[in-house]
Amino acid sequence: MRAAVFYGEGDIRVEDQPDPIIEVPTDAIVRVVRSCVCGSDLWSYRGANKRRGPLGIGHEFVGVVEDTGSEVTDIKRGDLVIAPFTWSCGTCPECRYGFQSVCRNGGFWGSPGSNGGQGEQVRVPLADGTLYRVDGITEQDTDLLPGLLTLSDVMCTGHHAAVSAGVTAGSTVAVVGDGAVGLSAVIAAKRLGAARVIALSRNPARQELARAAGADDVIAERGDDAVAALLETTDSVGVDFALECVGTEQSMSTALGGVRAGGHVGFVGVPHGSAAPMSTLFSRNITVSGGVAPARAYIAELLPDVLSGAIHPEIVFDGTFALEETPAAYAAMHERHVTKALLIP
Amino acid sequence: MRAAVFYGEGDIRVEDQPDPIIEVPTDAIVRVVRSCVCGSDLWSYRGANKRRGPLGIGHEFVGVVEDTGSEVTDIKRGDLVIAPFTWSCGTCPECRYGFQSVCRNGGFWGSPGSNGGQGEQVRVPLADGTLYRVDGITEQDTDLLPGLLTLSDVMCTGHHAAVSAGVTAGSTVAVVGDGAVGLSAVIAAKRLGAARVIALSRNPARQELARAAGADDVIAERGDDAVAALLETTDSVGVDFALECVGTEQSMSTALGGVRAGGHVGFVGVPHGSAAPMSTLFSRNITVSGGVAPARAYIAELLPDVLSGAIHPEIVFDGTFALEETPAAYAAMHERHVTKALLIP
Repeated sequence: MRAAVFYGEGDIRVEDQPDPIIEVPTDAIVRVVRSCVCGSDLWSYRGANKRRGPLGIGHEFVGVVEDTGSEVTDIKRGDLVIAPFTWSCGTCPECRYGFQSVCRNGGFWGSPGSNGGQGEQVRVPLADGTLYRVDGITEQDTDLLPGLLTLSDVMCTGHHAAVSAGVTAGSTVAVVGDGAVGLSAVIAAKRLGAARVIALSRNPARQELARAAGADDVIAERGDDAVAALLETTDSVGVDFALECVGTEQSMSTALGGVRAGGHVGFVGVPHGSAAPMSTLFSRNITVSGGVAPARAYIAELLPDVLSGAIHPEIVFDGTFALEETPAAYAAMHERHVTKALLIP
Repeated sequence: MRAAVFYGEGDIRVEDQPDPIIEVPTDAIVRVVRSCVCGSDLWSYRGANKRRGPLGIGHEFVGVVEDTGSEVTDIKRGDLVIAPFTWSCGTCPECRYGFQSVCRNGGFWGSPGSNGGQGEQVRVPLADGTLYRVDGITEQDTDLLPGLLTLSDVMCTGHHAAVSAGVTAGSTVAVVGDGAVGLSAVIAAKRLGAARVIALSRNPARQELARAAGADDVIAERGDDAVAALLETTDSVGVDFALECVGTEQSMSTALGGVRAGGHVGFVGVPHGSAAPMSTLFSRNITVSGGVAPARAYIAELLPDVLSGAIHPEIVFDGTFALEETPAAYAAMHERHVTKALLIP
């Protein structure tokens, strides 16, 4: 098969790789019909983490089951499936608590010994616990595939920010981060009934996407100026909920500074060395909640709204590339020409 | 009047002070009938914070209203009142959200220009927003006064840890900290229906108090060993909720380490330089919630249970001193002979 391989900073290649095979009886083989590039893939691409290639890459895909191991019972050859961005057993305590993303038997696509999602095929461990079958839809329903693909990660992750924060109907919400997850968080907050969603973005194209996602207002400031702008627009009170979708010290500081006393920060940005000062949380009674989104737990809730068109998370895809063009897709996202690149094998 | 004055590390004196008078029309004058020493007063006493005397000290008192300013309408001379450990206006956005402890017009007893609670009388700013009137009880009901006094701070603060964490019926809860707040958190967790409360304490007298407060189990280990013990006693899962009632880096680390994936840490220990590493919260989806307890908001809920004897937070008082003996009360708490010292003016 053909698959993208991460070699190192700025070095993604599409190469011939061995076709994956069933290795253990709980495996399935999925033929990828849509994949994409995540903002977190860019951390590797930019050399900002310690990932060392060559390794498969990509953790979001929708595909068709081609083969299943002897112990797989819930899915079968021919099923259209959504793969969450982690695999999970579905039976350990963490999975049973609804945190499949923290599954003690789980793992991440593209880790050593596993395929990445940016390729033609993927061996899926723990297939029953991992894959979500979408009934009544086929790979010919091409208009629906991008929306389904967002349930692999970004839409569920944005939803996790909103659910973790506890967004309530009628509330005011700030979303820090204008990437695909931030845009998804805007959609999620509106879906949960937020009366006013304020997106933080200084990029005109992203601002437009944020408004398309449902943002009522856009604030272009950053850092302390963003906090001041949030306070100014809320009569010096702060927002009820801030959704942190970046993972840097500055984005967390903006979220903590912009939320009201007793407010909640939902965070899903992969942290890069940041910490929440307890004195800040303490003095203003701020709750911080979030983490690796249990996408597997949320698909059932969000899928009907995607299929009905009640929400349109597919707007995050503003660039489409063939699998062979994966290096160009990374470059386009790195240079911020594209928010999120869809890949078609 | 006589009142305790903080001069510096290890230096508390009881002195003659001017009787407080109504300074602004929203003030009241309260004659203190019971006061006490808080674990957080010991931070000053030990020189662990930057407090510079001479200043009044003490922030927990129950008393009788002696005089009110012309704009005070909800309380009157002769009322028995509980003073929360901060004063608050009751009308600003923070108060209306139920976080009177973050009141933008509020303040702390013993700050410059205000009386401390460890004295014979206190000028109470913003008396209507601050004081909680207890109907049908008088200062002659001496058996009830210690329980009422815990609603100034420790019982409400322990409750805040449990409420912030979101303790649910049937859950497993660990309480980090065996001081008066930790003991109150044990009471609060049981009151909210926790099936199993594990108190962390290595002091035999405190262990006994923790069991009297309702703890089902006691773990004597500290730090990494405490985390290991919590995991061992929960089949390697961790507790649903951890209540952090100390405020140090180690106590927060124990709480974060002992809670399960997706679990919640409720924290009320005054932070001393600690921070929650976002990567720890992220990787295990841990929620951190808490802060300065809005005691004023909780008194109405907890008071009936104190009066009925459904809960017995007065067990935290294991030493009683006359006001003149305040220095001895501090010394006894500093040396851990006494968990919490009751003061009788």
